[in-house]
Amino acid sequence: MRPNYARARQQKRAHYDDATVRDILSGGLVGHVGFIAEGRPMVIPMAYALVDDTLYLHGASKTRLALLDATPLCLTVTHLTGIVAARSAFHHSVNYRSVVVHGLARRVEGEEFDMALNAITEHLLPGRISEVRPMSEQERKATGVVALDIEYASAKVRTGPPVDDDSDLTLGLWAGVIPVTTALGTGVQDAHTPAGVPAPPSVGEARRKFSGA
Amino acid sequence: MRPNYARARQQKRAHYDDATVRDILSGGLVGHVGFIAEGRPMVIPMAYALVDDTLYLHGASKTRLALLDATPLCLTVTHLTGIVAARSAFHHSVNYRSVVVHGLARRVEGEEFDMALNAITEHLLPGRISEVRPMSEQERKATGVVALDIEYASAKVRTGPPVDDDSDLTLGLWAGVIPVTTALGTGVQDAHTPAGVPAPPSVGEARRKFSGA
Repeated sequence: MRPNYARARQQKRAHYDDATVRDILSGGLVGHVGFIAEGRPMVIPMAYALVDDTLYLHGASKTRLALLDATPLCLTVTHLTGIVAARSAFHHSVNYRSVVVHGLARRVEGEEFDMALNAITEHLLPGRISEVRPMSEQERKATGVVALDIEYASAKVRTGPPVDDDSDLTLGLWAGVIPVTTALGTGVQDAHTPAGVPAPPSVGEARRKFSGA
Repeated sequence: MRPNYARARQQKRAHYDDATVRDILSGGLVGHVGFIAEGRPMVIPMAYALVDDTLYLHGASKTRLALLDATPLCLTVTHLTGIVAARSAFHHSVNYRSVVVHGLARRVEGEEFDMALNAITEHLLPGRISEVRPMSEQERKATGVVALDIEYASAKVRTGPPVDDDSDLTLGLWAGVIPVTTALGTGVQDAHTPAGVPAPPSVGEARRKFSGA
């Protein structure tokens, strides 16, 4: 994230344990996927799902990303949790939890294809697949799924108040943290939902899962 | 973002007008910066600022990003505003506003350096620079600033309810949007803030600026 001014501090923020990585990936709404296109870096926001040690992405079967195979991908998921206001501009920062994942793209077919598509939908709306009309063959053909088998993942976490220079602590200034929260609201039904049909369980599950994410 | 299943729809979501691009960049808390490192795409979350047609990023002067010069960068800013639950998995989507910016990295020195650093702090906390201790020469030396002069920027926006197949509209199912909101809470002062010192104006400005972002 921001400063990384001091390498020592940067290293203090790095967490490589599997549980931290999985927790951050599981709680992310969208990821930012990086790939190289015509020699340039490209970053696009995408829905995703984590299954064991593989991340899944999808898109129209003809899109650039869906056609990638055996090329390097990066997926980054960030939860911003606060703005850190210090007594000097230098020590301003943000509180966050993030994961950066690297691996090669792999095109997905067969049984893994259906499993992955379901997982992507259920990442955002747990249980949704059993609530909706099944996928058609035409829809399958129109969709591409790419796997990112995780080769390397690193998490970084910053929490807590600003870390000011000792000599700044007596300046009499206000310093602290402005919390940043992300919340899911009440589901708003569309015009074609019959009167009296309540929001399904998946909506409540999503609100519980991502509250405070 | 997610589906892009239909190219027609994908194009409908693309907005290239300058005002939309600036609005999305101005209202973003952090961006995701993509660059190529050792032949691989790398995506990291970063604070940033937009000044005229240039985006500024900063880091420790020895970090990989701060040392980039004349190499291609991508910065993507995403505001997620809803989860779109349709009657088929295929038509699930998310509501969002995003901008993808491309340009070359340029190392920043001199007057532009100070201006850019101030702009990055003030992007998150408008007016904060006048509230804090001025930057020291040692801090300047420890900091690197990179400019991304915008060559190409494109915005995408999806709003509104799901777009289901006509034949699915009579299934009797619930479909709609679960709103996603990001909010800044009340500033929490640290242990070194004297009793009775109120949160400064920059905190209120930030809360106004990013509410609902």
